[in-house]
Amino acid sequence: MSQPPETPLLDKVRIPADLKGLSDAQLRQVADELRTETIAAVSETGGHLGAGLGVVELTVALHSVFDTPKDKVIWDVSHQCYPHKILTGRRDRIRTLRQKDGLSGFTKRSESPYDPFGAAHSSTSISAALGFSVARDLGGAGGDAIAVIGDGAMSAGMAFEAMNNAGHLGKRLIVILNDNEMSIAPPVGAMSSYLSQLYAGAPFQDLKAAAKGAVSFLPPPLQEGARRAKDLLKHMTVGGTMFEALGFSYVGPIDGHDMDSLLSVLRTVKARATGPILIHAITKKGKGYAPAESAQDKGHATAKFDMITGQQKKAPSNAPSYTSVFSEALIKQADADDKIVAVTAAMPDGTGLARFMERYASRCFDVGIAEQHAVTFAAGLAAGGMKPFCALYSTFLQRGYDQVVHDVAIQRLPVRFAIDRAGLVGADGATHAGSFDIGFLSNLPGFTVMAAADEAELVRMVATAASHDDGPIAFRFPRGEGVGVEIPEDAQPLEIGKGRIMQQGKGIAILSFGTRLAEVEKACESLGGKGITPTVADARFAKPLDRDLILKLAADHDALITIEEGAIGGFGSHVAQLLAEEGVFDHGLKFRSMVLPDIFIDQASPRDMYDVAGMNAEHIEAKVLDVLGVDVIGKRA
Amino acid sequence: MSQPPETPLLDKVRIPADLKGLSDAQLRQVADELRTETIAAVSETGGHLGAGLGVVELTVALHSVFDTPKDKVIWDVSHQCYPHKILTGRRDRIRTLRQKDGLSGFTKRSESPYDPFGAAHSSTSISAALGFSVARDLGGAGGDAIAVIGDGAMSAGMAFEAMNNAGHLGKRLIVILNDNEMSIAPPVGAMSSYLSQLYAGAPFQDLKAAAKGAVSFLPPPLQEGARRAKDLLKHMTVGGTMFEALGFSYVGPIDGHDMDSLLSVLRTVKARATGPILIHAITKKGKGYAPAESAQDKGHATAKFDMITGQQKKAPSNAPSYTSVFSEALIKQADADDKIVAVTAAMPDGTGLARFMERYASRCFDVGIAEQHAVTFAAGLAAGGMKPFCALYSTFLQRGYDQVVHDVAIQRLPVRFAIDRAGLVGADGATHAGSFDIGFLSNLPGFTVMAAADEAELVRMVATAASHDDGPIAFRFPRGEGVGVEIPEDAQPLEIGKGRIMQQGKGIAILSFGTRLAEVEKACESLGGKGITPTVADARFAKPLDRDLILKLAADHDALITIEEGAIGGFGSHVAQLLAEEGVFDHGLKFRSMVLPDIFIDQASPRDMYDVAGMNAEHIEAKVLDVLGVDVIGKRA
Repeated sequence: MSQPPETPLLDKVRIPADLKGLSDAQLRQVADELRTETIAAVSETGGHLGAGLGVVELTVALHSVFDTPKDKVIWDVSHQCYPHKILTGRRDRIRTLRQKDGLSGFTKRSESPYDPFGAAHSSTSISAALGFSVARDLGGAGGDAIAVIGDGAMSAGMAFEAMNNAGHLGKRLIVILNDNEMSIAPPVGAMSSYLSQLYAGAPFQDLKAAAKGAVSFLPPPLQEGARRAKDLLKHMTVGGTMFEALGFSYVGPIDGHDMDSLLSVLRTVKARATGPILIHAITKKGKGYAPAESAQDKGHATAKFDMITGQQKKAPSNAPSYTSVFSEALIKQADADDKIVAVTAAMPDGTGLARFMERYASRCFDVGIAEQHAVTFAAGLAAGGMKPFCALYSTFLQRGYDQVVHDVAIQRLPVRFAIDRAGLVGADGATHAGSFDIGFLSNLPGFTVMAAADEAELVRMVATAASHDDGPIAFRFPRGEGVGVEIPEDAQPLEIGKGRIMQQGKGIAILSFGTRLAEVEKACESLGGKGITPTVADARFAKPLDRDLILKLAADHDALITIEEGAIGGFGSHVAQLLAEEGVFDHGLKFRSMVLPDIFIDQASPRDMYDVAGMNAEHIEAKVLDVLGVDVIGKRA
Repeated sequence: MSQPPETPLLDKVRIPADLKGLSDAQLRQVADELRTETIAAVSETGGHLGAGLGVVELTVALHSVFDTPKDKVIWDVSHQCYPHKILTGRRDRIRTLRQKDGLSGFTKRSESPYDPFGAAHSSTSISAALGFSVARDLGGAGGDAIAVIGDGAMSAGMAFEAMNNAGHLGKRLIVILNDNEMSIAPPVGAMSSYLSQLYAGAPFQDLKAAAKGAVSFLPPPLQEGARRAKDLLKHMTVGGTMFEALGFSYVGPIDGHDMDSLLSVLRTVKARATGPILIHAITKKGKGYAPAESAQDKGHATAKFDMITGQQKKAPSNAPSYTSVFSEALIKQADADDKIVAVTAAMPDGTGLARFMERYASRCFDVGIAEQHAVTFAAGLAAGGMKPFCALYSTFLQRGYDQVVHDVAIQRLPVRFAIDRAGLVGADGATHAGSFDIGFLSNLPGFTVMAAADEAELVRMVATAASHDDGPIAFRFPRGEGVGVEIPEDAQPLEIGKGRIMQQGKGIAILSFGTRLAEVEKACESLGGKGITPTVADARFAKPLDRDLILKLAADHDALITIEEGAIGGFGSHVAQLLAEEGVFDHGLKFRSMVLPDIFIDQASPRDMYDVAGMNAEHIEAKVLDVLGVDVIGKRA
């Protein structure tokens, strides 16, 4: 662990109110020290670095000008909130970021009154801020509502919906567009080119896009340039920027690292804003830390690193990640079939599609943070005769659920869903858990739903999905590394709706759906030592169920346990429904279904999270013993 | 039934290819006859009238200029597709619209090759059309892709996401903005004001918003005016309309009822478009039928009616609708508590909030077709200290699912979800079925999920939701009329997680969640005649479960049947999980869970749809007899 940096002025700032007496020059110094402290902290914890560095000055400026927590600053996505956390009474715990029992890597209402609205998924901040604004005007909690949203997050329809509504309502509401030309990957939509046009090549003071009514929000030195710009635009019959078209006043672009500009614009806005206003600030992701600035992803998410060199300290891996196995397998299928195309929603790296994109640029589509569109676009591709793989994280697929139902399932279109980050995901915590997809897909008529037990199975499932043209199909796999099994060279499609017996035992059967299989096998090793030999099966399919396999397991054993990395309502519920309908319960079966518990589980290592969930080998073993009525020392009760 | 109108020219048009030889004057005549036939057909069937009448000329123009079905016309929402259906080989069945075994009220891939992409929910057409465009350019199905989307549908973020992506990709793609200043209710967002600005007060030929590059798409008579307009705009540094900002060429506004304008613009666009282009057509909902034009909702959805007077022929109702009962109950709560506010997504009438809005204009928010924003806006309102009721149809809540998980449930914010149209909905068919909400809400930690058994229960549940501040709460209720029970004057909140026994019987218990209770009671009457007296209980809550009640029912009976108007994974699955965990199945219980079957059910009356689903009284009775091993003539097997 490196020595914490010297931060004499920051040391005196425990909460934002401590900023109030400082001069502008001192605020600049606080920002510099805050940047150093942020880098130092993340070098020890790992986490999202670049985004926070891009908003250091903005964080100080907001907390010094506004009266938080009465005024509500809502950080969109909120992985840029580390400097905010340091300034709002959490510096003493900042080196516990993203760790078990530590600070969340995101804003969180339960963590601090300075976090008025938690986030982790993108593009929610304007909706939330509008809620606060309206509540204030109706006599609810007081103060200003300020949403800080990145340009990438602006590509999501939800942000547009919120602006459309905010512009209509006309309430005082402040949106700061933090435009760093980067979300996680470089942004890809037309909106992004548009934002570039708004400031391309122009000195900030020129404010060529400053428009009607906004001049008065500018500090005097900037007003003259704006008047000139406005003069040029006097023949415009339709309001200036897209934001003005949506009813916002627009101020900008301003340099988001220039504390003087930030302070004077924010002070003026605070004093004079009456309706919704958007401040367009240009920032650099990774600002002020050379290794981040020069990294391709601008230091988006990093492991622990050496502060001097920026070298990341990653643990060596024993097996390829599921994501990379998926990526390779899909490229292989695409090599053989030019109808295969791929869709990602702003996650080319996270989903492994970046390599597909390198190889097949014209067949890979990054649609931006836009899961609703991603799903229906894929449905259109399928209707047009292509074989689309829509690669999304489980938690983000929730954004496109209606499209999955309405555009894919009802029309029985063969869209292939590659669902990454299924199950518990570790440091990103509850907001990123992939808990619900088994349930919300398996209840859809005509859907095929698979989960890979290991990386070899994943490759088979990619092949299965590629060859499956009869309706939609999904396969899920977790974050992290595989188990190290050999990957089949020439993977053949699986028979739809057929599971496999892994180990024939007696008395009790365990039917696993997904990667808990390894834990089941570990549990069985231990149980073997106690003279208990469960039958172990890998269901492979939650839909269609392998009825024959399940009914035979039920018939041949006294007890049957299902296990899956998902919430209630998924695989286990489908098995229970089958057993009930077939009358299996009528005369008794010791049936149990191990699912994620009915709590949101905070960040920790995935293993620790599964401990909380009660789904590791020891819990499986305990469940078997309990069901069989055997106490821990091995006697039947 | 009235005499079908005389339509000599339309009679010769069986499919769009038959339009090819006609003169422009004849096409105008076809349009006139098509309008008459549409009115005549809907007068017999009921259905969506106004939207179709608004696009009669556009329908004829599109099918005459483009080569459908090779060229794909994708109608957004598609309730405006009746004229399209008449023109595309389905005139002989047009009087079966929205009826069992008849034509769907929406486009449907399985119904016709002229329906390349089905719809019913809004704002999907641009995504789908982009999919077709990309597929075409990659060697998939050929032809142009043309999305026809209303101004109301443009308020949904999904349309923005699609345009953002389409503008970036630059593929040839045609979007027709059918701007009638109406979706179902008058549109409410800033976007709508913006669109009005684009044509306010200007004669169509003036084209004041015609912008860079689009002049060449205009037929010669219009080009001069456009050049003048462009000249005026030459100082604009940032592209003209919002659509151009998103990378589209923009043509318009044009008069969407002027066949000459439509034909010449479409012909020119067909001949010359290279990238994405948006044609802004101004139309009138209900055009050409006075009773529709003058109706407040422009004849949005109508019962059968008299063609001459426009008088609708509605069956008399015996009880108030659930929607109106909800509306009244919410107003009553709001009278007593000024923290209660309401949110609707473009459905003030459909959700019954229109009356709330009349009374409490400042506390009721119609956010437009924008469910994602609606949910998070409500979450912001709750975080700001208000008591928001977010009133949505079950099927549309799917649009905001991630927001329910991420912004509401994880933060445990007390947003109240009033879920209308739960279960099967009748004439709107599978796309509007509210099948999945029980499952996708009950799996969320901290959520409370209720279903009303009748309208009196609904009133109690509104009171329960109003008084419940500990996390989110939802209550669901069906489309249609209540059962006629007395509505409590001073409804008291229910005890959370407690059901009620309706009838004490023996041998078998039926545990109902929702309005199937009436069918259960009907079944029990009939069973009583056979000497079988089931215990009947109303669960009221799917979450938290009434554990005591359920375990007692299981302990006191040989058999337990659950029933709910929802898909697998919901209430019945939670009950099964409880019974399994408690070891109830270990020694046998005849457990069955009646849920919606694993099919999408086509339109019919709700009763007929529940027949298909096997969830009416006779099916419940049959299930009881089957479980008890009693054959139909009443003997135990």
